[in-house]
Formats: sequence, C-alpha cells, structure tokens
Amino acid sequence: MEPVEITYFSNDEPGGPTVLVGGLPGIGQVGKVVVDHILHEIDAEKVAEIHSIHFPPQVVNRPDGTCRLVNNEVWRYRSPTTTYLFLVGDCQSVSPEGHYVLADRYLDCAERFGVKRIFTLGGYGVGHLVDEPRVLSTVTHAHLRPAVEEAGGTFDGDEAGSGIVGAAGLIIGLGARRGLEGVCLMGETSGYLVDPKSAAAVLRVFCRLTDIGVSRDRLQGRAEDMEQALEQVREFERVRQNDELSYIG
Amino acid sequence: MEPVEITYFSNDEPGGPTVLVGGLPGIGQVGKVVVDHILHEIDAEKVAEIHSIHFPPQVVNRPDGTCRLVNNEVWRYRSPTTTYLFLVGDCQSVSPEGHYVLADRYLDCAERFGVKRIFTLGGYGVGHLVDEPRVLSTVTHAHLRPAVEEAGGTFDGDEAGSGIVGAAGLIIGLGARRGLEGVCLMGETSGYLVDPKSAAAVLRVFCRLTDIGVSRDRLQGRAEDMEQALEQVREFERVRQNDELSYIG
Amino acid sequence: MEPVEITYFSNDEPGGPTVLVGGLPGIGQVGKVVVDHILHEIDAEKVAEIHSIHFPPQVVNRPDGTCRLVNNEVWRYRSPTTTYLFLVGDCQSVSPEGHYVLADRYLDCAERFGVKRIFTLGGYGVGHLVDEPRVLSTVTHAHLRPAVEEAGGTFDGDEAGSGIVGAAGLIIGLGARRGLEGVCLMGETSGYLVDPKSAAAVLRVFCRLTDIGVSRDRLQGRAEDMEQALEQVREFERVRQNDELSYIG
Amino acid sequence: MEPVEITYFSNDEPGGPTVLVGGLPGIGQVGKVVVDHILHEIDAEKVAEIHSIHFPPQVVNRPDGTCRLVNNEVWRYRSPTTTYLFLVGDCQSVSPEGHYVLADRYLDCAERFGVKRIFTLGGYGVGHLVDEPRVLSTVTHAHLRPAVEEAGGTFDGDEAGSGIVGAAGLIIGLGARRGLEGVCLMGETSGYLVDPKSAAAVLRVFCRLTDIGVSRDRLQGRAEDMEQALEQVREFERVRQNDELSYIG
Repeated sequence: MEPVEITYFSNDEPGGPTVLVGGLPGIGQVGKVVVDHILHEIDAEKVAEIHSIHFPPQVVNRPDGTCRLVNNEVWRYRSPTTTYLFLVGDCQSVSPEGHYVLADRYLDCAERFGVKRIFTLGGYGVGHLVDEPRVLSTVTHAHLRPAVEEAGGTFDGDEAGSGIVGAAGLIIGLGARRGLEGVCLMGETSGYLVDPKSAAAVLRVFCRLTDIGVSRDRLQGRAEDMEQALEQVREFERVRQNDELSYIG
Repeated sequence: MEPVEITYFSNDEPGGPTVLVGGLPGIGQVGKVVVDHILHEIDAEKVAEIHSIHFPPQVVNRPDGTCRLVNNEVWRYRSPTTTYLFLVGDCQSVSPEGHYVLADRYLDCAERFGVKRIFTLGGYGVGHLVDEPRVLSTVTHAHLRPAVEEAGGTFDGDEAGSGIVGAAGLIIGLGARRGLEGVCLMGETSGYLVDPKSAAAVLRVFCRLTDIGVSRDRLQGRAEDMEQALEQVREFERVRQNDELSYIG
Repeated sequence: MEPVEITYFSNDEPGGPTVLVGGLPGIGQVGKVVVDHILHEIDAEKVAEIHSIHFPPQVVNRPDGTCRLVNNEVWRYRSPTTTYLFLVGDCQSVSPEGHYVLADRYLDCAERFGVKRIFTLGGYGVGHLVDEPRVLSTVTHAHLRPAVEEAGGTFDGDEAGSGIVGAAGLIIGLGARRGLEGVCLMGETSGYLVDPKSAAAVLRVFCRLTDIGVSRDRLQGRAEDMEQALEQVREFERVRQNDELSYIG
Repeated sequence: MEPVEITYFSNDEPGGPTVLVGGLPGIGQVGKVVVDHILHEIDAEKVAEIHSIHFPPQVVNRPDGTCRLVNNEVWRYRSPTTTYLFLVGDCQSVSPEGHYVLADRYLDCAERFGVKRIFTLGGYGVGHLVDEPRVLSTVTHAHLRPAVEEAGGTFDGDEAGSGIVGAAGLIIGLGARRGLEGVCLMGETSGYLVDPKSAAAVLRVFCRLTDIGVSRDRLQGRAEDMEQALEQVREFERVRQNDELSYIG
C-alpha cells in the first residue's frame, strides 16, 4: 500500500475555472458540516476516493450492517460558471508528517482537475460559547482580501492570532507554493461540539464568495445527525488518548 | 530488515475455497483466545511466520529457558470442504501507520494462499461486565449479513456503534478494496481481562458459519493459561505507558 | 513533497571564509532573538528557504491578513572579511528523527555556500531567573576554545552539564563529522519566556568572536515584538500537548 | 544521512571464534556498567562507530569543553582463544521501529567481523532493592542453557517472566533468525539508579562463561563516575517526558 492512495472515478479534461473546497473534520466540525450540507443540497458526483496509512487505522459501520474503511473523498459539482471540487470525509492525519504528505496529495488531485483557487473551511476554537460567531479569514495573496471582507469575513491581523494547525491551513499554504490562490474561512466556535451556528456563519460568507446558493435551513438537523456518525470516527482518538493501545483489536 | 518480513513454509498451489481467520491480541483477548483454542483442537500446520519493525521491540521467554522474537503466524487447516488460514500471534502494530502496513501484508499472504473470504474475530469493549455477551457483527458486503444473523451474530446499525480500531477492522476493510469478502465478529467484553465467556460466544457463531466444529469445553482453561503468557507481551506497553523509555534495556 | 525542500535564491560561487550562524527557536528563544536582531541591524539577503514535513503542520498569519507556511530561512551577509549565513525561522523538528534529517540538510545547504565554521546560538534552561546570565559554550575542536573564552564564553566541563538537545547541538555535532568547526553559545535563561537579557549576553560574545558589530540597544524591544509572533508558532505544541489532536482543523 | 551510519576503523579478515558482547544503556545501567568496566581493564581497540537518526537528537559535553554527537561504538579485544566485540555507547533507539532497525545493523556489523555467538548484558527491573541479585538468563538455543546455569545464571521459565524490551532482547532475537547463538544475562535491579551490585553479579557470570578475566574491584567507583556522565544522555528523555518539546534548542 502506498502512503496515500487516490482512486479516480473521472478522467474528464479540466475546463473553465475550477475551485477546491476543503471541509474536513476538525474543531467544532465546522468545515465538515458546511461541506456535507452543501453536498446534500446540490447534485454532485464523486470523482475521487482517498485512503492513507496516515488516517486512523479503523473501519466505521454503516446503518445497513456493513462497514467501510475510513476515507476522504472528492465530489464535483459544475455550476453555470465554475467547477467545484469538494474535499470531504472522515479524517485528518494522525501524525504531523502525515498532514504534509496528505495535503500535498490533495493538491496533486486538485491540480489534475484544473484547480486554480482553494477555499478551506473550518472552525476556530475560542474555548467558550460564541453568540454571533465571526468568520476569521486568511488568504494566501493580499489581492484576495477585499472580496472576503466584503462577503463578511473578518481579518484580525492586528490581534495576536493563533496559527492554523492542520489541513485547513496546510492545503492553502502548500497550495501557494504551487501558485494556487487560497482562502481560509474559520467560524469561531467553542470547539467542543458540532457547531451548526458557526457552520451557518461560514456558509453565509462562502456562498457570497461563490455562485453556490444553498439554504441554511436544514443545517441544524444535519449537524445533529452528524454527531452520531462522528462518534465512530472519534473512536481511534479515544483509544489513543486513553493510552489503551494494548486494547486495540 | 524489511518493515514486514514473511517467511513461508509452504508453496502449495491454492485450491478450493480458502478462508482467512484473524485472531490477534486485542480487547479482552477474545479473538486470540478463540483462534488459539481452535488450533489446539484441530491438526493445523504452520505455513508462514511474520516479523515486523512495527511489532513491539522485544523477545518473550519460553518455559524451557529459551526466548524468541515476538511474531505473528499463519496456520493452515484443510476441512473436508474448505481450507482455513488462521492468523494468530503475539501482537498488533505499535503505530497507527504500522497497522495499515501490516494489514496490507497479511492480505498479500492471504491472497497467495487463495483466500477469497475473511473472518476477523475480536472483542468489543463495553466497559462493564457482561453476563450474556452478544456477538456484534459487521460485514463488508450486504449479502453476507443474513447468514451471520442466522448464526447468532447481532447487527446494531441503528445504535451508535464505535468504529472498529485496529487489525480486526482494517483487515476486512482493506480486503474489501481487493474484492475479498469480510466478516468481523466481536464478542462484547468488559475489556480488562482475558474473557473466555466472550470468546465462547464468538466461537459459537463462528462454528455455525463454517464447518469448523470444535468443543468449547477447554476454552476456560486455555484462557487461564494464556493470561500468564500475555504478561510478557504486555511488557512493552507497560514500559511505554510509564514513559519509562529510558529504562528499556 | 520531499521530507526537506530547500529553495535557493542565489547561485553565487562560494568565495572567502564563510560562516553559518544558527539561531532557531528554542529555550527562551535566545538564539532566535539574537539572529533576528542582527538581521534587522544589517543588510542581508535571503538566499534559501526551507520547508519540511518535519515542521509543525501549520500556517502563520501575517499582519496584512495573508498567511504563510511555517518555514526556516537562510540569509547572507558579506562583511569586509567574511560571508555569514544566518539560519533563522519559525521552527525545529516535531520528531526526534526529523532533527537529524533537518540538521543534515542544513549542513548540505551550508556546504553549498562554502561554510567551514559554524556558530549555533541558543538558550540553556536553568529553571530559575538569572541576573547575570553566563554564556555556556562548547566547541567541536579543542583549538577553538581559547578564543571563545577570551570573548566571554564559559566552559564548565567540570560540572555535570546537561547534553544539548535539538538543532543547536546537532548542527555542530553532525557538522564535525563533515570536518566543519563548530561553536555553540548558550545563554543561561529561566526558559519560560523570551529572554532578551540572555540574548544580549550571547550577542556580546558572538560579536567579539566575529566582525559583526551590532548594537544591543533595540534587543529588548525586539524581544517584546517577538513574543506575539511566537504565539502562533506555539499553537501546534499547544494542540499536541493538550492531546487535542481531534481538534486539529 | 542514512538512518544508521556505521564507520569502520578496521578491515581485518575475521578469524577464529568471535563473540559480540552488548552492553548498552538500560535498566539500572547494568549492561553499560559491565562492559565499560571491562573495557577499562583490558586493552581493546575501537573498530566501529555508529550514528543514527533513531538516537536522541543531541550532543554531550566532554570534560575538555568539546562536545560530540551521541553514538554507539564497537571495541575489539583478542583473548588467547577468542575475539570479542563489545557494543557500547550512549543510547538506545528513541522509537520502537528504530530498535529493530538498529539491532539489525548491529548484527550486520557483527557478522562482518565473523561473530557467531552473542552475549547481551542488561538489568531486569524488579521495582525494589535487591540484596543478592540473581542473573536472570535466557538463550536462543536450548543447548546453551546448561553452561549458563553452571556459570551461575538463573532460568525461571516456570515463573511468569516479563518479556525483554529493547536492544538486549532484540539483538539475540534477530540474531537467532540469522543462525547466531545468543545468551542474555540480566542482573536483578531496582531499576532506578546505576546499580554496581547488579553489574558485579552479571560480570561474575559473564567471566565464567568466557575467558575474559577482569577484577570486580573498581566496579563500584566506575558506576559512580558513570552517574554524572549519564545525566547528559538522559537530558533528551527528560525533555521529552516533560512534554517540553517547544523548549528544545
């Protein structure tokens, strides 16, 4: 097995402006809620599936009694003006090095489909409940900032912000080295639970920046459904944090 | 040394239906107890031995004063209708990445011997004592479910189950990507001690699903014998959990 | 992505005596404060940029709202007599093995530019506040010692010193295997905060050993500015120490 | 840099019976004390030096103010009947996988010098002070046992012994796979301090098994001297155990 294996279900030639949208699990599951919600509202097709030795070593159960390896996926949707590739799935890397290896391969995949611009969506943990979550934003190129601000994103460069750890930051950071433009939108969140309010804030800014126009009506219900499914994927973290490695099996 | 080294003791051509049965150490040692018990009751031959840098770095003592590297092994038994390969041994991977690398090589080994179907046996930790342990089951293909249910396996897809972390899940999950059918049978167990009652429940379901017919009479005694042998293999975990790495030697 | 990627911005032929000066983040940020201060006071040019999968998987925010991958850099300054290469940046390795891999590549880079002698600057944590920090020193070759002592460096070989863990020691240790001379200067520091007093002591010794002559006037202010920027880079450590890996994202 | 680098200082053809004696740091420093003591008492020459990315990333200070990378070394001594190779040094692997990689390379080195038999010396932590430490022994081949017992080694195969974690076990375990005979002698020790009494017990058994005949007179003093030197090498463990990785530097 290769460290990262990508199975492609489409060989279409790239054409027209193409955008990658990353919404992987993370703080408050904000990015994951947003992208999973969008995929329920639009008619996208799966174009790639990603497995990796850097993912947690586990399977998750489906409601029908079958199971599947944890994985990430890329779904494609063509709007009238733009092709969108949504990177979603179960997990991030279990090791620091794996984060780099995976982000690099996500970008290989994105470039194969012609991507020139990247949005990554996530949560920004503030450790307490937030009534009106801001959407803290960062961009790889200064010329991208005005549009993000106009859409409602906040830039707080004057405050001491924390760096962005994990896939949401790394994908745009490594993307910039390849000449790709990147925008990261992070909804403020307490960080402890799936946070639909933070997700709604991020979705609002994201929709204003693109021609994706989905309702936020069912976001709350989706977040509740997700809570249960996420339990399974958190199992590996739980096992590891309890130092119960000898209990794996 | 290669990351995983498999020594083969048989070059037989595969023939007839062949099944892999995984019973590695894990929660409550359920899978290990079941497969070790079966191997005592039948007349199997060792066909492969597996060493890996992903195993704990240690030797275990034999009663005669000699020692040997920890390892896993594959034993073969031919019933009237089916060839069985039993994957047993001392250990699972010490790192998340190693789990993937090892499971992948177990499957190479299985395919070399013509395996088309996989059973993995294990325990499912519930954190409290269980009087009548259920055998929680999952399958890689929906058509496998009815037979497992008929044999007494439980599918609780409606409850929020935890994902299956470690070899038992990974072997069937990665196997499915190669087109192999997989069934995972996990006996409910408190998770703290070698659990012969949970093992008996798993053995009952397993025997009904195959033409392996072994008595459960000596299972209790075998579990007690195993407790002592396992002490040695747990040594590495003990050392690591105590952060006593400087005490290795 | 390669484990370590170095982008060179200069192809100049090496010429004349060339010296590497390492000032990476570490205890009390002493080495980083010294070298960042020097680079503000002199007119150096960036000649190389280093990215690595062994760095923390994160981006840091710039004041203008843009972000960049964490990285290390090499800056060159030509004094009347000597060429100096300053190794500075955001981070050290996140794994023990990565320290070796990175130090080895830093040395490849140094040799490409003709380096024959190395200074590494750092802090030496003593766990309590120090009024007049000594500059504890070590060298790779005994003939280097008298000059360092004359410049104010202390050698306490008679006391039981702790080994030097991390890049400051490894770069000169691995350098010596290549025949490069190395001097390590470590300012005593409590270890908890950015320590400009310790940095001033190191800078004094360093300047006496070279023909770099910069004022120590603005060192205090620089250390204060640095405190805020460092918050971001510490984010990965904070996430990891809290075992909040599931919060990454 | 290769993961393990061995520099050879001798190209002598192997000749006559050749024995490897491993005495690396570990529990109670027993093996290290024994072999370091022997090397002080006999006239051996250094034939190889080992560096590895799996060693702690650090340098240690010498009394003269210079420093050197941590490393392991092989010293050769020719008795009237036998050639001995002593494997000694500063450290074991910092990762489980590294233990395998290093042990495998130690064996490459041993075979290059014609080794057919291996002794590894170490401590066996019992967690409390021991007045008359036994020398717990294990062998790779049953025919080696009688001689070890005659020399005073104890085999307690009937008790539940712990497995041997780390280099002492791995070197003979992996050696057996190459057809090399191995004996591991472990002195009982509390495990907390350098333990000269345990070392004396191991030395006694070892000398009876070989034609190495060194006095145990100065063992106590050597152990005391070692305590200070070891402080430096423990620095990496201290840093890591305190989760003070951000303090490296």
